[in-house]
Amino acid sequence: MQIREVQNIFLRIRSNKIFELFVISVIIFSALLVGAKTYKLPDPFNQITFFLDWFITGFFLVEISIRFLAETKKRNFFKDFWNIFDTTIVLISLIPIENSEAAVIARLVRVFRVLRMVSFIPELRILLTSLIKALPQLGYVMLLMFIIFYIYAAVGSTLFYNINPELWGDIAISLLTLFRVMTFEDWTDVMYETMEYYPLSWIFYISFIFFTAFAFLNMVIGIVVNVMEQEHAKVLKAEREANHEPTIKDLDAKLTAVQTQLEQILQQQGKS
Amino acid sequence: MQIREVQNIFLRIRSNKIFELFVISVIIFSALLVGAKTYKLPDPFNQITFFLDWFITGFFLVEISIRFLAETKKRNFFKDFWNIFDTTIVLISLIPIENSEAAVIARLVRVFRVLRMVSFIPELRILLTSLIKALPQLGYVMLLMFIIFYIYAAVGSTLFYNINPELWGDIAISLLTLFRVMTFEDWTDVMYETMEYYPLSWIFYISFIFFTAFAFLNMVIGIVVNVMEQEHAKVLKAEREANHEPTIKDLDAKLTAVQTQLEQILQQQGKS
Amino acid sequence: MQIREVQNIFLRIRSNKIFELFVISVIIFSALLVGAKTYKLPDPFNQITFFLDWFITGFFLVEISIRFLAETKKRNFFKDFWNIFDTTIVLISLIPIENSEAAVIARLVRVFRVLRMVSFIPELRILLTSLIKALPQLGYVMLLMFIIFYIYAAVGSTLFYNINPELWGDIAISLLTLFRVMTFEDWTDVMYETMEYYPLSWIFYISFIFFTAFAFLNMVIGIVVNVMEQEHAKVLKAEREANHEPTIKDLDAKLTAVQTQLEQILQQQGKS
Amino acid sequence: MQIREVQNIFLRIRSNKIFELFVISVIIFSALLVGAKTYKLPDPFNQITFFLDWFITGFFLVEISIRFLAETKKRNFFKDFWNIFDTTIVLISLIPIENSEAAVIARLVRVFRVLRMVSFIPELRILLTSLIKALPQLGYVMLLMFIIFYIYAAVGSTLFYNINPELWGDIAISLLTLFRVMTFEDWTDVMYETMEYYPLSWIFYISFIFFTAFAFLNMVIGIVVNVMEQEHAKVLKAEREANHEPTIKDLDAKLTAVQTQLEQILQQQGKS
Repeated sequence: MQIREVQNIFLRIRSNKIFELFVISVIIFSALLVGAKTYKLPDPFNQITFFLDWFITGFFLVEISIRFLAETKKRNFFKDFWNIFDTTIVLISLIPIENSEAAVIARLVRVFRVLRMVSFIPELRILLTSLIKALPQLGYVMLLMFIIFYIYAAVGSTLFYNINPELWGDIAISLLTLFRVMTFEDWTDVMYETMEYYPLSWIFYISFIFFTAFAFLNMVIGIVVNVMEQEHAKVLKAEREANHEPTIKDLDAKLTAVQTQLEQILQQQGKS
Repeated sequence: MQIREVQNIFLRIRSNKIFELFVISVIIFSALLVGAKTYKLPDPFNQITFFLDWFITGFFLVEISIRFLAETKKRNFFKDFWNIFDTTIVLISLIPIENSEAAVIARLVRVFRVLRMVSFIPELRILLTSLIKALPQLGYVMLLMFIIFYIYAAVGSTLFYNINPELWGDIAISLLTLFRVMTFEDWTDVMYETMEYYPLSWIFYISFIFFTAFAFLNMVIGIVVNVMEQEHAKVLKAEREANHEPTIKDLDAKLTAVQTQLEQILQQQGKS
Repeated sequence: MQIREVQNIFLRIRSNKIFELFVISVIIFSALLVGAKTYKLPDPFNQITFFLDWFITGFFLVEISIRFLAETKKRNFFKDFWNIFDTTIVLISLIPIENSEAAVIARLVRVFRVLRMVSFIPELRILLTSLIKALPQLGYVMLLMFIIFYIYAAVGSTLFYNINPELWGDIAISLLTLFRVMTFEDWTDVMYETMEYYPLSWIFYISFIFFTAFAFLNMVIGIVVNVMEQEHAKVLKAEREANHEPTIKDLDAKLTAVQTQLEQILQQQGKS
Repeated sequence: MQIREVQNIFLRIRSNKIFELFVISVIIFSALLVGAKTYKLPDPFNQITFFLDWFITGFFLVEISIRFLAETKKRNFFKDFWNIFDTTIVLISLIPIENSEAAVIARLVRVFRVLRMVSFIPELRILLTSLIKALPQLGYVMLLMFIIFYIYAAVGSTLFYNINPELWGDIAISLLTLFRVMTFEDWTDVMYETMEYYPLSWIFYISFIFFTAFAFLNMVIGIVVNVMEQEHAKVLKAEREANHEPTIKDLDAKLTAVQTQLEQILQQQGKS
């Protein structure tokens, strides 16, 4: 009995509007703190930020504990992706780092606490999950693009190695150079350099741009329009069902009923 | 009685085609004047533009007064966004500015009088309001993109601060640098510089480009297609209603009527 | 009688497949000649190209004359945009130009003979007219974008005039600079320069990029999707009509007929 | 009989899951080998890669022979595009190349073996064929764009030849320069240079950018949306047929049946 009472208290705290607002404020404040620390601050401020950091870490620990204790079935807590996400971020922040070199890593971990904003605002959570859901659809197109990149990079580093090893030294550097060409970033400098040795090398660049730009646009627009139409169809269906609007199927059923009635009439007429 | 007569005169002036054309001409002329003043003009012209400026300000004051006086209910005048917009612009132009430094501000205010063109042409007004209506839909996507930008900027200014403080000095400068990377503007220069210290920092840039470019395209295309389909559906519905075309619902109602008629026939047959 | 016979000959020539192929060959040859003349050619070739030029001009004159004479109603000939287009190009090529300075203009006129390809291939003609038909839809969006450009250019040349007159000297130069910023071409160089005097001038650039990029994408995607859907609907309608597929309207008419039949039955039942 | 038995063995090998996995592993391994050879490797490794190369070539030869022998009708083997594709790549790799200059070509041929990945993964094959199917739709738009490019290149090399022969030397170089302008790559440098001689030459560049950017976006978006809608319609039709959902046509047929029944009833009523 006592445990349930305590749990009810935690449940009430978790669903309390003021508590929610306070949590969001602390998350925003921790984001601002991350930003503030990138500025050169006088020494007393550094000590203040140090204590504020530990306050935020402590508060997040308390908040997650409340959410964990409020859960009736403890297992369900770890079934939610966002709970695991929040817990991981808080636990990593807890690791004490004394060493000055690792201090950079500690600061980076604190940066990711900003992501807690996404886990706290439902609309952002939906947005992110819908973006992640679209990724598998991209899978094979990404693979095809990678194969195109890989072949061009292999050809590039074979032919242009001696011209400029900084751009075409090995296949990894060539992949980076090709990504640069795809974004049109000073790609003509790269091309004019190789055209001095191979005057026809413009075919290499222009065919590559056509393949990747066309494939990329195709991919992105195709997926977006597809996702849009699916959601549009869902909304239409839900609206129809909400308004109890008849479908063609309903009409068909009614017509079949009419036909059986007519047959009855005909049979009765035959009898009389 | 006298007041109503005066009001009728103002109403007639406001809806007069020649008066409307004249107002548009003055707006276009004021726009041209704004452009002309950016050229080095000989001294007598400067004095002419000075007087023309005051003439335009005066004319706009008269025009707005006519529109205000023509309104039967004075309150409604201030309920229209475009009336408030026009009045504000005219009133700000009236503030006398002697000081030479503030003269620049005075000139800038006159530039915004060009926006009166938008308030006067109905098609542009519709276009602008539809663009503004699309903005809230963007709201959460913008927030998500800002969070991505913020995290990358925090990471960037933490890791790359010592490499180039002009690009990664604090979080504000880093945000600007990242916007530059998103527009592909000399982004490889930024990358090659940091790759000398952190050879793996290309992951930072390429992941950032993928996130933002994909999210941005997703957002814009998604919203545009969505808006298009909604308007398309509206137009279709309006057309159907105008042509008194039957819907599936109408068919369903008629079929129900047929069924009741058939039941009547069956009942009558049973009786006879 | 004699005139009609001659006309019939011209009609037969115009619709002759071999004649059509020959005309296309001459057009392509004239396009290649335009390209060839951009190369440094030895002297004898120059004389050859000179004579070929006059041969092509003469041939086009003959070809248009045949098409004109083959027309039964001479007025209709000038009602077709492409006939006027072809005639104008041929007539301009006929103007004799001796003067060496005007020779450049003569060469440019010959370049536009390549456009005759568009007038000769029906698919290209359809494509071009559909592109031109989409332009009026762009009308007001273009005007809105021009107003945005104009205001930013006026503000830019007012504030940044003293920083770099080559980029912000007057409103015309500023418009060009802003177009450059819209294409992301070295826009940060422009921004960093003005940020030294006005540290907040990044707001100017970033707001401008957002407005124009968003408006432009909105405009293009919107129009394309709109045009696509209209054509899609047309094709669907044509298919249905070709297959004699019933519409909801047809079903409605049949149901009404069923109802009148049922009423007849009910009335007859009432009588008996 | 004996031949059929051997063929059955080959058929069983070809459809064996482990054999398939092994083939994919060898393809991926050959791709990695292509990448590895772009790095400076110590001498012993070079010899190893030499032998691995011959092992892969041999394995591919065996694999294709198995697939050929497993085919019941040998003719059908060469009707499949991907079989010809694979055979060609393997046969080219077999040509022995001793000469050091041709060694580069030998290495390039081996790069294209990576494309066998596409022929082995069905999803990639579908993707590539659907991309290739979309190309003919692009045909006339590409031709129109090429005509626009050609005219601008001819005008450019006529007017700007003396300003910078490296950019406008002949029509081929001008086409490349215009492609560069279309990708916005340092296009202002090109423009500012010609504007010193022809101050109005910005019209040339800006009109070109508008034509090509608008036409290109139009083309790509149009085709993608079109392809998407066609596939969407196909999926919808297949779903309906799978669910045996009635169409408007079915309703129409039933209504006609109802009408004939009613006429029967009326006739019977008339008799009685």
